[in-house]
Amino acid sequence: MDDKKYIKLIQSTNIAEYSNIKGMIILKPYGYKIWENIKKILNNLLIKNKYKNVYFPLLIPKNLLNIEYKFIKKIPKELAIVKYTKLKMSNKTKTLKIDKKSKLNTEYIIRPTSEVVIWDTFKKWIETYRDLPILINQWANVVRIEMRNKMLLRNSEFLWQEGHTAHNNKINAILEINKIKKIYKKLIKNYLSIPFINGYKTKTETFPGAKKTYTFETLTKIKGKSIQLATIHFLGNNFSRMFNVKFVNKDGKKKYVYGTSFGISTRLIGSLIMIHNDNNGLLLPPLIAPIQVIIIPIINKINKNKIYSYIKQIKKKISNKIKLKIDKNNNITPGQKFYKYDNMGIPIKILIGNFEFLNKQILIIRRDTFKKYKIKFKNNINGKLLKILNNIQKNIYKLAKKNMYNKIKYIKTYKDLKKNIQKKNGFFITNWSIKDNMKNEIKIKKKLKNSIRCIIKNKKKGKCILSGNNTNNLVVFGKSY
Amino acid sequence: MDDKKYIKLIQSTNIAEYSNIKGMIILKPYGYKIWENIKKILNNLLIKNKYKNVYFPLLIPKNLLNIEYKFIKKIPKELAIVKYTKLKMSNKTKTLKIDKKSKLNTEYIIRPTSEVVIWDTFKKWIETYRDLPILINQWANVVRIEMRNKMLLRNSEFLWQEGHTAHNNKINAILEINKIKKIYKKLIKNYLSIPFINGYKTKTETFPGAKKTYTFETLTKIKGKSIQLATIHFLGNNFSRMFNVKFVNKDGKKKYVYGTSFGISTRLIGSLIMIHNDNNGLLLPPLIAPIQVIIIPIINKINKNKIYSYIKQIKKKISNKIKLKIDKNNNITPGQKFYKYDNMGIPIKILIGNFEFLNKQILIIRRDTFKKYKIKFKNNINGKLLKILNNIQKNIYKLAKKNMYNKIKYIKTYKDLKKNIQKKNGFFITNWSIKDNMKNEIKIKKKLKNSIRCIIKNKKKGKCILSGNNTNNLVVFGKSY
Repeated sequence: MDDKKYIKLIQSTNIAEYSNIKGMIILKPYGYKIWENIKKILNNLLIKNKYKNVYFPLLIPKNLLNIEYKFIKKIPKELAIVKYTKLKMSNKTKTLKIDKKSKLNTEYIIRPTSEVVIWDTFKKWIETYRDLPILINQWANVVRIEMRNKMLLRNSEFLWQEGHTAHNNKINAILEINKIKKIYKKLIKNYLSIPFINGYKTKTETFPGAKKTYTFETLTKIKGKSIQLATIHFLGNNFSRMFNVKFVNKDGKKKYVYGTSFGISTRLIGSLIMIHNDNNGLLLPPLIAPIQVIIIPIINKINKNKIYSYIKQIKKKISNKIKLKIDKNNNITPGQKFYKYDNMGIPIKILIGNFEFLNKQILIIRRDTFKKYKIKFKNNINGKLLKILNNIQKNIYKLAKKNMYNKIKYIKTYKDLKKNIQKKNGFFITNWSIKDNMKNEIKIKKKLKNSIRCIIKNKKKGKCILSGNNTNNLVVFGKSY
Repeated sequence: MDDKKYIKLIQSTNIAEYSNIKGMIILKPYGYKIWENIKKILNNLLIKNKYKNVYFPLLIPKNLLNIEYKFIKKIPKELAIVKYTKLKMSNKTKTLKIDKKSKLNTEYIIRPTSEVVIWDTFKKWIETYRDLPILINQWANVVRIEMRNKMLLRNSEFLWQEGHTAHNNKINAILEINKIKKIYKKLIKNYLSIPFINGYKTKTETFPGAKKTYTFETLTKIKGKSIQLATIHFLGNNFSRMFNVKFVNKDGKKKYVYGTSFGISTRLIGSLIMIHNDNNGLLLPPLIAPIQVIIIPIINKINKNKIYSYIKQIKKKISNKIKLKIDKNNNITPGQKFYKYDNMGIPIKILIGNFEFLNKQILIIRRDTFKKYKIKFKNNINGKLLKILNNIQKNIYKLAKKNMYNKIKYIKTYKDLKKNIQKKNGFFITNWSIKDNMKNEIKIKKKLKNSIRCIIKNKKKGKCILSGNNTNNLVVFGKSY
């Protein structure tokens, strides 16, 4: 899907629109409902796994970033910095301008992510091993003033969840990471029906302050560009050292705390759009679709009441667990409704017209295959709908998986890598010695216009296609958004 | 409750704590859960009334505030203004400082409220009467850099919901306001068990840009200070005029749109604490309590397994709709648990010890009255718990109502007003001519150290205690937070 088509689809489905700040968007009801559905699913998974939701401040005092900077020697880019707190009228322009007298003693930065605030607070919360582990999560907004923007995939403000955990040792931190991997896998595969490759980032792409960043990567349907769906960071005891977060262990010794953090965002909405689409618009997996079944009446002045009455009876047979909507709007034709709801990706259309009324049946049309089903009123309509929805959920995943796998190639030589990259986008998996090629990573990235999306540990050793040395690493090259 | 006690209660119950930015707090799991419960209740009421949730950007471009300023001639105070987007290392101090080269072309202001962004967008969404009404709501954070702060009651950042509506005429806007009044009344009275007085604000206290601000006011339990719980604004067509938001009506004529906005925030948590408390700590209304029933085992090394097994059976008899927790922590005594959970305001304690096990019963203790109930295991434990919870919900309201009403006085003379205000805080209701006294409102406010919390329309006319003229207005004086 080219960029224009992608934006048009978001706008025509009323998922989102541009705001009057470059890079920031408005999530409209349909789009916000998709996010709410994702939230509900993931929140339940986290709560089941003993996470507690909290809320930390939006603003970070600069001194915390100073502390972080001293340790990791990196300055976060693209920040929104607050220095003044009052506006006044300019006598010259008769408009508002900053009142310089309202200068704050120090700068406040809108959180691009919350580790520094969290770990500065963990220092107060953690005394002994009894206070561990800590498993907290927050659903919040973050701001990263991006230069390049892409609606829903790369915005200057986005909604997300950020989980933060503290443990008494490295093993428990790693075990927690494995738990989150399972949770994210379930969310992305079973609920969003999105296939992915799972690995860890190279050093240059690792979260500043983390020891390792694990990532979930996928490919868009048409252009085969790579989207980073979710990340999990093993922080080691870096942030403990930064903020002096220690605990007294069972032997009475003071030790540094080990940490993790992880997050997914509204970028998942953009991912759904980029992956589940066809010529008719979106295809939404039923488990996160705001509307799962749309009933479209086909009426005229004579039979209107009869049909509506029949629809009422059908509605009674459908469990309220199914997200159902009936479109009684008479200002657009049934045909226009078909286009509208197909475009919105609604999994099931039910048509009810004179024919259905006379034959005491309903006509079901699947969004993914457009296969039709005639179900008699007396039969188990609800059961049939659930079965089809379940089928669609699985089929959408199958289609996406097939599409991604078609774009995955195992590469044997560096020449082949260059050739394939120029031909078509995709995932190019190859033996690659991280150690040998680390210095040139950025140069290679520029040359190939592809980056290493993640590293996968290979069981066997293979020859690095660039250095020729044996390596356990397989890397996945791709062109990112 | 004096200020120290109030803060101590928030901290000892782990509802919230100070952050490292003055005026901004951290909502800890228990406090955040109370907010989530309030959210769930109000969200359901709004959705039932056809509201759609959306999400607008955090940042407002200054030009929108310029437009608003031209119209209402007021500059919002206490803003967090973003002008720069990069930090760099200072060679002098070796710490981070603003990179002046990252100056934005215009200022972005963190939303103190979203009307200007919403109405600027409504312009694009509204063409004809078919596009009305619009009923949208957003759950979000806002920032108002306050000089005076009071944990949960007045913070520089808080979480809230802001509803925004657009209508084709004044009547429909007012009808919507009446709908929201009913919704807020239900939330505040039935769920939060908080009594209130409902009226509208004086001109100086009306939301800038609104024609009228309706308010829900209550009194704290001990000091009798006034808390503004919720506000609803009738905007008339002010914001339509500001942002040129018109629609073509059924007769083909272009008309200005009429609007409303309304909000409640995490201040409600502070209100709960200020109103529902006794010498043992908080008293939480069951319908918003994160934990409704806490089971406290009273065990020793010998009977431990027996008691836990018995508790397991009891748990099976309790519906999972009741928010139940079992405290098996052996590091604190049962007595310490009583204090802890009473302090946290948990509505029901169930004690299970050897005596209960041998007599095949449970011991229930109510948080509000400390009345005890012995219920046999074979009886309907679940039904009894529901009954008691329902009773507690009502009783907490009764106690709060009695307390508020004890602090309401009808005042006949200005001398009496001054006398009563000096004696004790409360609501002082009196006949008051807004028209006559408007010019002196701020002076009177300073002198009395009380402000007009709201105006209530009186059915009969009465003599204004200051000007002596007849008036339909009753006003409510109080000392605010």
